[in-house]
Amino acid sequence: MKYQPTPDDKFSFGLWTVGWLGRDPFGEATRTPLDPVEAVGRLSELGAYGITFHDDDLIPFGTSQAEREAHVKRFRQALESTGMTVPMATTNLFSHPVFKDGAFTANDRDVRRYALRKTMRNIDLAAELGARTYVAWGGREGAESGAAKDVRAALDRMKEAFDFLAQYVTEQGYGLRFAIEPKPNEPRGDILLPTVGHALAFIDRLERPELFGVNPEVGHEQMAGLNFPHGIAQAMWSGKLIHLDLNGQSGIKYDQDLRFGAGDLRSAFWTVDLLESGGYEGPRHFDFKPPRTEDYDGVWASAAGCMRNYLILRERAAAFRADPAVQEALRTSRLDQLARPTLGEGETPAQLLADTAVFEEFDVDAAAERGMAFERLDQLAMDHLLGV
Amino acid sequence: MKYQPTPDDKFSFGLWTVGWLGRDPFGEATRTPLDPVEAVGRLSELGAYGITFHDDDLIPFGTSQAEREAHVKRFRQALESTGMTVPMATTNLFSHPVFKDGAFTANDRDVRRYALRKTMRNIDLAAELGARTYVAWGGREGAESGAAKDVRAALDRMKEAFDFLAQYVTEQGYGLRFAIEPKPNEPRGDILLPTVGHALAFIDRLERPELFGVNPEVGHEQMAGLNFPHGIAQAMWSGKLIHLDLNGQSGIKYDQDLRFGAGDLRSAFWTVDLLESGGYEGPRHFDFKPPRTEDYDGVWASAAGCMRNYLILRERAAAFRADPAVQEALRTSRLDQLARPTLGEGETPAQLLADTAVFEEFDVDAAAERGMAFERLDQLAMDHLLGV
Amino acid sequence: MKYQPTPDDKFSFGLWTVGWLGRDPFGEATRTPLDPVEAVGRLSELGAYGITFHDDDLIPFGTSQAEREAHVKRFRQALESTGMTVPMATTNLFSHPVFKDGAFTANDRDVRRYALRKTMRNIDLAAELGARTYVAWGGREGAESGAAKDVRAALDRMKEAFDFLAQYVTEQGYGLRFAIEPKPNEPRGDILLPTVGHALAFIDRLERPELFGVNPEVGHEQMAGLNFPHGIAQAMWSGKLIHLDLNGQSGIKYDQDLRFGAGDLRSAFWTVDLLESGGYEGPRHFDFKPPRTEDYDGVWASAAGCMRNYLILRERAAAFRADPAVQEALRTSRLDQLARPTLGEGETPAQLLADTAVFEEFDVDAAAERGMAFERLDQLAMDHLLGV
Amino acid sequence: MKYQPTPDDKFSFGLWTVGWLGRDPFGEATRTPLDPVEAVGRLSELGAYGITFHDDDLIPFGTSQAEREAHVKRFRQALESTGMTVPMATTNLFSHPVFKDGAFTANDRDVRRYALRKTMRNIDLAAELGARTYVAWGGREGAESGAAKDVRAALDRMKEAFDFLAQYVTEQGYGLRFAIEPKPNEPRGDILLPTVGHALAFIDRLERPELFGVNPEVGHEQMAGLNFPHGIAQAMWSGKLIHLDLNGQSGIKYDQDLRFGAGDLRSAFWTVDLLESGGYEGPRHFDFKPPRTEDYDGVWASAAGCMRNYLILRERAAAFRADPAVQEALRTSRLDQLARPTLGEGETPAQLLADTAVFEEFDVDAAAERGMAFERLDQLAMDHLLGV
Repeated sequence: MKYQPTPDDKFSFGLWTVGWLGRDPFGEATRTPLDPVEAVGRLSELGAYGITFHDDDLIPFGTSQAEREAHVKRFRQALESTGMTVPMATTNLFSHPVFKDGAFTANDRDVRRYALRKTMRNIDLAAELGARTYVAWGGREGAESGAAKDVRAALDRMKEAFDFLAQYVTEQGYGLRFAIEPKPNEPRGDILLPTVGHALAFIDRLERPELFGVNPEVGHEQMAGLNFPHGIAQAMWSGKLIHLDLNGQSGIKYDQDLRFGAGDLRSAFWTVDLLESGGYEGPRHFDFKPPRTEDYDGVWASAAGCMRNYLILRERAAAFRADPAVQEALRTSRLDQLARPTLGEGETPAQLLADTAVFEEFDVDAAAERGMAFERLDQLAMDHLLGV
Repeated sequence: MKYQPTPDDKFSFGLWTVGWLGRDPFGEATRTPLDPVEAVGRLSELGAYGITFHDDDLIPFGTSQAEREAHVKRFRQALESTGMTVPMATTNLFSHPVFKDGAFTANDRDVRRYALRKTMRNIDLAAELGARTYVAWGGREGAESGAAKDVRAALDRMKEAFDFLAQYVTEQGYGLRFAIEPKPNEPRGDILLPTVGHALAFIDRLERPELFGVNPEVGHEQMAGLNFPHGIAQAMWSGKLIHLDLNGQSGIKYDQDLRFGAGDLRSAFWTVDLLESGGYEGPRHFDFKPPRTEDYDGVWASAAGCMRNYLILRERAAAFRADPAVQEALRTSRLDQLARPTLGEGETPAQLLADTAVFEEFDVDAAAERGMAFERLDQLAMDHLLGV
Repeated sequence: MKYQPTPDDKFSFGLWTVGWLGRDPFGEATRTPLDPVEAVGRLSELGAYGITFHDDDLIPFGTSQAEREAHVKRFRQALESTGMTVPMATTNLFSHPVFKDGAFTANDRDVRRYALRKTMRNIDLAAELGARTYVAWGGREGAESGAAKDVRAALDRMKEAFDFLAQYVTEQGYGLRFAIEPKPNEPRGDILLPTVGHALAFIDRLERPELFGVNPEVGHEQMAGLNFPHGIAQAMWSGKLIHLDLNGQSGIKYDQDLRFGAGDLRSAFWTVDLLESGGYEGPRHFDFKPPRTEDYDGVWASAAGCMRNYLILRERAAAFRADPAVQEALRTSRLDQLARPTLGEGETPAQLLADTAVFEEFDVDAAAERGMAFERLDQLAMDHLLGV
Repeated sequence: MKYQPTPDDKFSFGLWTVGWLGRDPFGEATRTPLDPVEAVGRLSELGAYGITFHDDDLIPFGTSQAEREAHVKRFRQALESTGMTVPMATTNLFSHPVFKDGAFTANDRDVRRYALRKTMRNIDLAAELGARTYVAWGGREGAESGAAKDVRAALDRMKEAFDFLAQYVTEQGYGLRFAIEPKPNEPRGDILLPTVGHALAFIDRLERPELFGVNPEVGHEQMAGLNFPHGIAQAMWSGKLIHLDLNGQSGIKYDQDLRFGAGDLRSAFWTVDLLESGGYEGPRHFDFKPPRTEDYDGVWASAAGCMRNYLILRERAAAFRADPAVQEALRTSRLDQLARPTLGEGETPAQLLADTAVFEEFDVDAAAERGMAFERLDQLAMDHLLGV
């Protein structure tokens, strides 16, 4: 059957996605809790290869040590019986009220120290379950008012936390890298490291930047009105795209977490095109919320829809790139020239200044008249996306 | 007279600000051209200390070499007679149709080379006039459609350009640093390096990052819904805030360039608070557009308003920080704890794990109950802002 | 004491505002439940004159009839002992999962009928407690996907519901009017009647439009990037501003419900100016959420802050309007001409065509040169706002 | 050939669309002027049936009467020789500096009177050329600052203008209706009548509302983050959708005017679905701007793309509605129940109160458990859109 996912497609889902109960700021849960073991089984049947989790998704907050082991054991058995993997894990540093002012950047020092320990504990479990990526979303690291957070001090504390955690995984010999997940706002009025760019810049100032990358989420960048493929392209260019969260968002508003493909479909097409052609080798991880209008049939339909849409778009993007008319159109739009260095090999400022063809004799008006032919190129993309 | 600016306040304006003729996407110019010499004189009288320019603001595009020198000479005389300085200059790489697809990242290689030469030429003039900062706003470096720009290739070209220009200023011995100005969109559908974060991350990948910083503009960050003081705080934390563009913007919409103070007034208050208390030593540069409803009386009123609002906010922010009730409120909100490292000096992961007070014995519920008292703190800020 | 509210100021608060427990999409409650009786007492002490409620705020969903009466009795006693009033009440048609697809426009007919009964029941209580306004916020009337809701059919159902409820209050002889509260999105992807304009247009198509008005909320309009004072001005112009929800919002993002004054302060100034000068006689109702970082001290501080900020702005707006320099500036900006009809009394098209001064002899260029002097006027407003 | 437009498809274009020269706020024109006669010819060849214009598109501002007639004559000949129609015309009340503070709501009374005459003059021409719709976009009716416009007075002036113009077309016996075009902002900071809803509500307060409808533009509603199909559905429900402007927009930012289909493709699908299934009989009018990167080949490619995309989406929407699986899914989601009145025929409040099945015996929890199955339905829509 066409568009049927297999483990080779490397699709993964968060336990918290299909397990979201539908509680929102204005309404109660509409679904009953989902057993993680069932989630593993159902996602495996649907064709996924991996499952990811926050500590508290798997082991409810406050669980005793004995019960904790029972939870982990059942989960591990489900993984083994299905062949599902755990490519990534992460810490819940946002649900419990103790984190109401942040975790690594909470004003309260004891909360910050507690957050480090909670994270270390789940890093141990992540490593034990074979995860290669440890995501860090600092959803509560931010503020609603101007004096409540000294941003420079907070960035010091954030750096301190990540340097410390990197030291820990290094000392433990864990094969983990951290992926920082940016978000501009919600649940805080403004969140620190609001975009892919801010996270990349932050990473450059850490002690062990090589252990860090970013985990961009479609909707998070779009909540700032940013072009998601552009954002991940800069992350790739920086060698830092090690994981990502695919979902859908209808513009600048609250965080919608629609299934992948919903929201901005054309952006989803270019995202898949870039991931598939750009050498991204990580999981295709879905971080979405099945709408609270849905019962569990709807939950599994939406999970299947995420993967189906990815596979359709992958097919369409491949056809777009393979089409000779597209290749010709790309040349007409001079994409080949963009790939070529601006300067000759070793060309110096003095040499450029001496080349009168560049400036003194350059016919700027003639150059200005050349059409870029982008509209024809984009219509070819539209045709391929729509399969006509 | 109170709130009367003096050169010590380091206020500067772009020639293109008071000189904007009021042409917008839907309408013709409403003002007649302003002689740069008059701009220097009027701004000096109003209390500014500096003026900045794009090459084409001072010397119309296509001017012959002889005329060029006459333009420069008149301008220099105006500077000398008034004592005004040129703290910054920049290149217009966006108005002429030859740049319709970009300058440093245009698909056309000859356009890219031409853009480098146009920039070098104005760098020479900037250095000659004593500028310390050379701003680079890549307003046309972007795209409206997905295949039109290979972002990774474009970033290669952008890096190539900046590395080359840094080589040039180094070889010439110019005392200039570059300040990259981010903007998310407009005039392109999406612009490369859309936020302060993206620009900071880009700079880290240049050959001579020490020659580069950012030039954040209030409205540009706010067009992405981002918190401007947070953005410049991260730039300061990174040692990269070397210049900035102060103006006003009413939320996420077209680039408004209102006078400073208009738009989000509370954000302006925190901006001034941060600049004044955070060690920023560069110019307070206004990049605004007097609305096209105004004649020249209105132009000068709006320029004066920018400075007046800065001075009022400076006074209010200083009073806020000096108020003992505020200092007490900051402690109640534990800002002092945020300034303290999370870890003890040299504390290792093993030591943190061994400290049972951190996790095993931590009373998480008691910690969660502590109020942060941010609302009281923020109301004190409001009172100081409003002068009550 | 200055800025100390009294009942004459007509400040009211929703039970759900100070009673919000701090549960958000990513976190658990940070505060323990607040007894409505305590809310009445504390708000009265702070200077409010009224309290408002959703049925489920006062009487938990599913309460037995006997307990219901006990809840009402205690609440009524609290009102009597404090002198607090209930100017408005409303129905919770969004929290229970049965409303996950809407109430008056749910696809399920039995849910729609249930919603009508739930509303009628609380209308009875509202009337009994002396409320004059019954607010209807249709927070779940909307959709996340295109085929899920036939909007025209849904508007038919919405009209049917309101026509029916208007019949009910008419038959019962209740002195109530309905105030429809618009919101663009959240918790649904898109909500029907998304702005003040849409609600006004909807009302015009009801059977008894005279029984309906709007209840605009600051943040809701700002979530669509709209100018709040402009929106309520159109509602006033239409004779339909019968209630409103004052709060703060920092631009286009999730619904923040900040205390009044926070967010866009300049917009708050113009809002107060319009309410006070424009003949609005309804309650100054605050619909805000004390941030979840706060304990109950912070809750009461933020409630007090809402009123304090209103009073400060009322003072500043009055001073602005009374200032002779402002009155002169308004004339310079020709606001007096705007108040004058464009046409002469009874002037016909034929007469206008015959008046050559209007067109044939009109010096359009001279007219275009007149400056509007809006920047000076706006700076005067800024000075008054800041109290300089 | 598939997706080849014909006049029966009723596609029309503004002269100002293909004729846009590419001048934007930051750059000069990139294309040379287009002769209206050529525009008529090229659009006719591409398959359009109609062309629309602002007065100044056809007859440059300030043209003498003799030249004016020559312009009209040439244009009329082009129409006759191609069979193209003029379904709509409109007035340019925004480009000339005289309109910098508005036209019908300018503070200057003489400007308002001039604007009426300019409009009447072009209404005469519109009627002469057989237009049935006269669009009114009040792009300059707004403000950048709070005191600059008394909104209630401005709405009085707006009403006065439209009542007067309606009187004029009535007296003249023109078969024209007015279509008011809303826009939230740009070129003014805030524009009056910012959304479809505000325009509908305004129309209800005119003397001759039957002569008025709305002209919604895709991008304008999306600039406020609103759902375009929802907006036109309310306009249809109100009997007021008499014309519309199809184009593309990538979220909340400056007005992009992309070709139809670009921007939010899924919204475009639902727009076409609604127009085709909802009984809309007016022109499918494109109001877009070919990007300034394009030469005239690109201009015509983008115009052709608008129509092609409409035809593809029309085909897909029809297949979606015809698919038995979709019809079954719609029933599963209870869209049939939404179409059914909530109340029985003539059911009174007393009768509803007496029906215990509605409330007293209603099993609210059981009702809450029913899934809506919207995700499956939406995935079917996605499959049809993508042609899989």
